[in-house]
Amino acid sequence: MMNRTELIHQIKEKKSFLCIGLDTDIKKIPKHLLEEEDPLFSFNKEIIDATKDLCVAYKPNLAFYESMGHKGLISLEKTIQYIPDNIFTIADAKRGDIGNTSEMYARTFFEYYHFDAVTVAPYMGEDSVKPFLNFKDKWVILLALTSNEGAKDFQMIKVIDQMGVSTERMFETVLKTSMNWGDDENMMYVVGATKAEMLKKIREIIPDHFLLVPGIGAQGGSLEDVFKNGANADIGLLVNASRNIIYASNGKDFAEKAREEALKIQQEMQGLMFNDSNS
Amino acid sequence: MMNRTELIHQIKEKKSFLCIGLDTDIKKIPKHLLEEEDPLFSFNKEIIDATKDLCVAYKPNLAFYESMGHKGLISLEKTIQYIPDNIFTIADAKRGDIGNTSEMYARTFFEYYHFDAVTVAPYMGEDSVKPFLNFKDKWVILLALTSNEGAKDFQMIKVIDQMGVSTERMFETVLKTSMNWGDDENMMYVVGATKAEMLKKIREIIPDHFLLVPGIGAQGGSLEDVFKNGANADIGLLVNASRNIIYASNGKDFAEKAREEALKIQQEMQGLMFNDSNS
Repeated sequence: MMNRTELIHQIKEKKSFLCIGLDTDIKKIPKHLLEEEDPLFSFNKEIIDATKDLCVAYKPNLAFYESMGHKGLISLEKTIQYIPDNIFTIADAKRGDIGNTSEMYARTFFEYYHFDAVTVAPYMGEDSVKPFLNFKDKWVILLALTSNEGAKDFQMIKVIDQMGVSTERMFETVLKTSMNWGDDENMMYVVGATKAEMLKKIREIIPDHFLLVPGIGAQGGSLEDVFKNGANADIGLLVNASRNIIYASNGKDFAEKAREEALKIQQEMQGLMFNDSNS
Repeated sequence: MMNRTELIHQIKEKKSFLCIGLDTDIKKIPKHLLEEEDPLFSFNKEIIDATKDLCVAYKPNLAFYESMGHKGLISLEKTIQYIPDNIFTIADAKRGDIGNTSEMYARTFFEYYHFDAVTVAPYMGEDSVKPFLNFKDKWVILLALTSNEGAKDFQMIKVIDQMGVSTERMFETVLKTSMNWGDDENMMYVVGATKAEMLKKIREIIPDHFLLVPGIGAQGGSLEDVFKNGANADIGLLVNASRNIIYASNGKDFAEKAREEALKIQQEMQGLMFNDSNS
């Protein structure tokens, strides 16, 4: 259970707003782990041990666990139980369905697995998101502007606003409409770091909400740009890195190398937060 | 494995385009089943036995299985294995993520569970959908216009088309853009039956694609309206009913009552297909 105040406290204490994506792929983890009883969990356990003082959030990507069938879900369950209580946990699941189904997903991630937050897709509108917001001290992280090429297909198209004029893009409408479904205590937004120039625009609409920013590293965004355009007084950012940390090495030193990569990012974040990289 | 030709053959042979939604909820199934080792599977098994000659598709709603943790996924696995090969299977999962993650979801539903089709949300665009289309004789069922209240929030808003004029709504843009990602042999669309008057418009854009139509019964659409506005020469419809069939009774006669409800719908479908209800 982690509310906004506690999350901000952790960010300031750890001098980090790093989220580590646990996109744990049986085909990419070091071969020696395949002899273990539960390779995915063994991998995650070592990654968590090596990085837990450097990050404020872990984000398992559900697809990687689901692809292993029910066994993958057991690995996920053990992983969540293993993550220390003072670290924010995000189910990167991108769910969203009619009300009674979204409520089932909310129960799944919040009550069964005890995640703090779940990523949700906005296409089905208010009643597909609201059921997630009925859980105290739990969070919806709604997709607004994603970091992939396909973001241009629908998120970036121009729409007609309520005044009958076209001044905004779809993702802006998503922000403006959805910001009233909850508040900055139970909603965050996914905003891709490849669109750092869009962050200013987004901050005009939602100055206070936390943003979950994927796309640092492998997907190519600049941390400095993200911070300059996206940070607010409470920092208000969770910046995710996955592959460049967890697959820094595929040898027996994978956890050590993951720590080195995480430390580099944490140090850069500390510099940006305390302005000592520019002094 | 079921391609378009075989699906059409099944529809004509069974005189039915009924899809039964297996939204199997541990809190709603008859109490006597809770003594069984695997209540969800026991329920599904009886429902399948009682209805398999009346429907052409089953659609398990993933949320209901996931809410039970890894045990629910075992129930799902057994359910899919139990469904006869000549019945189309749809994972109602509403996934959609960046390319490498969508590929993992595709493997999950197509290779691990052996579903024929999976429902996908369009918000993240082309590269979030394409990985599902790379599997031979498998299907994407893309959300276009859903049957819930929230459909108005984003699906129904007016957008500016490539000519700079506003002649269409978001769901029409989704149809026009996505119809070129695959073809009518590997893509279908979700179109809510509560919007029967929209079906004509949709058929102008995609005359040949199959439509998966939820919202009959509990959600209130009329089968006759759907057929009149949505059917094409190959029928081209899968109409889903869930709760009004599977929860027709919560006593020991639940399967028998489910059959009665399914038979009513199949008879109405037969009447519409062969025009003998109007004669």
